[in-house]
Amino acid sequence: MRYYEDIEVGTTEEFGEYHVTKSEIVEFAERYDPQPFHTDEEAAAESAFGELVASGWHTAAMSMRLLVENYLRENAGMGGRGVDELRWRQPVTPGDTLSVRTEVVDKRRSESDPRRGYVDNDIEVRNQNDDVVLSYTVTGMIERRNPGSSE
Amino acid sequence: MRYYEDIEVGTTEEFGEYHVTKSEIVEFAERYDPQPFHTDEEAAAESAFGELVASGWHTAAMSMRLLVENYLRENAGMGGRGVDELRWRQPVTPGDTLSVRTEVVDKRRSESDPRRGYVDNDIEVRNQNDDVVLSYTVTGMIERRNPGSSE
Repeated sequence: MRYYEDIEVGTTEEFGEYHVTKSEIVEFAERYDPQPFHTDEEAAAESAFGELVASGWHTAAMSMRLLVENYLRENAGMGGRGVDELRWRQPVTPGDTLSVRTEVVDKRRSESDPRRGYVDNDIEVRNQNDDVVLSYTVTGMIERRNPGSSE
Repeated sequence: MRYYEDIEVGTTEEFGEYHVTKSEIVEFAERYDPQPFHTDEEAAAESAFGELVASGWHTAAMSMRLLVENYLRENAGMGGRGVDELRWRQPVTPGDTLSVRTEVVDKRRSESDPRRGYVDNDIEVRNQNDDVVLSYTVTGMIERRNPGSSE
């Protein structure tokens, strides 16, 4: 298990291969983001995008899957606190393959709860052409191994 | 259709009833956020949450469904640009009913593309007890009715 004390600011990791299919784009969008450029290929062709594109929230969810499987599983995680500066930079389309790059940019102890700390990670999601399609900074909560220490 | 010129800063709207079920929480999490406190009732009871809770990305997706159905459908929308200051404030659990409050807090024309403008909305997602469970500011792109005008 990786605790707050084990996290080092500056650490980077790169991982993942998420294959994006048309059926998954449409299925997610029909449930959570039923705008025509996410659900209907013909309407999407007439839209500003010119083709079917994934819901931005779907792209975020796909990045979370890669994070959980490759990065967060070892953490003594206590859930997410929030996200800042999330930007959908390029459309994600059927056939894309997504990967993730993480960088620990800050950590600090909770002032109200000695059992937890906060860790900020910069996340970049790229497609197979190395274009950044999504970026954000996520703040996660993680258990401290030694709640009483000053570390 | 509602265009950039039709949007007024300061406008607020409240809408929606999204009933959150255990099966949907687990289904979303198994696909996109397979952490035990989102997928396994027994493991969740042992976690910092003490019960099964929705993935934060699931809560965001549910808020998007309410936004599309009640608010964005009339817009000449061109997709989302990004999100700032997203905060998961309270857990979302099976049986909750979510609603959304929106407020237009800023708008501005694109400097690079005369066909579009940007609109910032503050979003608050509340449960049946009026607790804010999620808040964020989302920036959307929207068509201008009169691309050449100075409005």
